[in-house]
Amino acid sequence: MSDQKTYHFSVQIYYEDTDHSGVVYHPNYFKFFERAREDIIGVAELSRLWHEEHIGFAVYKTQVQYHQGAVFGDILDIQTTWEKASPYRLIFHHRAFRPNGKKPAVSCDLDLVCLGPERKLLPIPDLPFLSDQKGHSPIK
Amino acid sequence: MSDQKTYHFSVQIYYEDTDHSGVVYHPNYFKFFERAREDIIGVAELSRLWHEEHIGFAVYKTQVQYHQGAVFGDILDIQTTWEKASPYRLIFHHRAFRPNGKKPAVSCDLDLVCLGPERKLLPIPDLPFLSDQKGHSPIK
Amino acid sequence: MSDQKTYHFSVQIYYEDTDHSGVVYHPNYFKFFERAREDIIGVAELSRLWHEEHIGFAVYKTQVQYHQGAVFGDILDIQTTWEKASPYRLIFHHRAFRPNGKKPAVSCDLDLVCLGPERKLLPIPDLPFLSDQKGHSPIK
Amino acid sequence: MSDQKTYHFSVQIYYEDTDHSGVVYHPNYFKFFERAREDIIGVAELSRLWHEEHIGFAVYKTQVQYHQGAVFGDILDIQTTWEKASPYRLIFHHRAFRPNGKKPAVSCDLDLVCLGPERKLLPIPDLPFLSDQKGHSPIK
Repeated sequence: MSDQKTYHFSVQIYYEDTDHSGVVYHPNYFKFFERAREDIIGVAELSRLWHEEHIGFAVYKTQVQYHQGAVFGDILDIQTTWEKASPYRLIFHHRAFRPNGKKPAVSCDLDLVCLGPERKLLPIPDLPFLSDQKGHSPIK
Repeated sequence: MSDQKTYHFSVQIYYEDTDHSGVVYHPNYFKFFERAREDIIGVAELSRLWHEEHIGFAVYKTQVQYHQGAVFGDILDIQTTWEKASPYRLIFHHRAFRPNGKKPAVSCDLDLVCLGPERKLLPIPDLPFLSDQKGHSPIK
Repeated sequence: MSDQKTYHFSVQIYYEDTDHSGVVYHPNYFKFFERAREDIIGVAELSRLWHEEHIGFAVYKTQVQYHQGAVFGDILDIQTTWEKASPYRLIFHHRAFRPNGKKPAVSCDLDLVCLGPERKLLPIPDLPFLSDQKGHSPIK
Repeated sequence: MSDQKTYHFSVQIYYEDTDHSGVVYHPNYFKFFERAREDIIGVAELSRLWHEEHIGFAVYKTQVQYHQGAVFGDILDIQTTWEKASPYRLIFHHRAFRPNGKKPAVSCDLDLVCLGPERKLLPIPDLPFLSDQKGHSPIK
């Protein structure tokens, strides 16, 4: 992990993301983290896996800490690293930073597994994003 | 239609339904109206149609007017009537009333069609909710 | 905790709750658990606290495990227990059971804090649901 | 209107946008159209209006037609034009095109009004996006 670069993904906070308390509704960060993961794995690759091989990823477990609420108009910087913890499990570490934030507003660890037809557990396929972690880190 | 009773369906407004302006986020009323329609048609019937016959309903068109914003804590009374406008089309009329509301906060007309495998247009099936409109009107 | 009864709250799974993989979209369980918590605390009480005293609850941290996917048509039984872990923190334990499920489909621990104006941390107020835990357990 | 350019806004379809029927859940197009409108008006401008002047926009009425379902992996091209129909009302015309789509998958007309404190109707403010329509049309 030590030399893995961090993947940056931007999320604009819209009306749809907030609730009446004035900040982002807490489950919505899971949407932002998933968008980042889908960008990392590649939406075209995920779409091909799903429609052609009937393979998909599912969240097995996750833990989240909320430190600060993001507000309408924020552009969050979602910073993500990941590791293959076993042949059957990927672990992603997500942190959401508000504009000029020194500390993460929200941080999350999340375990992903791979499911085939009938939701049968499969080994994690050998996808491009797993083999070129060092180079795969666009700044958006 | 003249003697059709109105179907009442209650919706509790939660944090998840609101946005940072303090009222219900406008597309969420479509969720409330759909919950009412699924209650009218019968979720078990819809589930059976989908899983066994691969038949589902889809919204073809809709128009909505927003008069007043519902807030966290409201229990909305969704009042619905419907008609079979053609062999291929159902029209639902939804009105959402806030507690003690004399006029609807939101009103909506919505056309539903029936789709089979490959999203092929099918005639509206002969479901129970279409044949016993007069008796089918529980007050919840 | 040993003699605290479990609070039951029912959630009907609608189209809005699912995603294209055929099961409930994983962050949506947080909505179901929040609806259960709001029912436990009392929506009228929460609404009064928010609109009159500008006090609200916020999720501080949570961890979730997903064992099985719920599907359209399921009625989930959300079983919840809770404890006051400190003057500033409530911990809720949620488990979502599918129809006839022997084991929970999803289980969740969640820490709640209380925030006043300017999102200042406040002691947990002395609300009714905290004082009559033994009796407060309707079967719905 | 005849010489107004069309504003293009891209929307990536994620898991969160779909439902178990395999296509985008119908109310979610309103989120996509709103993101486009917020991009047109300017999120920073909207945020400033809201936080400093307590002014916001609200949907007054809308009508939508659904022709085709978008799927996971699609990148939609949201094409928007708009007009100031009266001192108090803006009308937006949105069309969502699937990749290589010749006809819109979804089309929508939507009326926006401007609300101040206490949700009082205000004249539409003189914002930059209304004065430079001809030039304001980036291709994204």
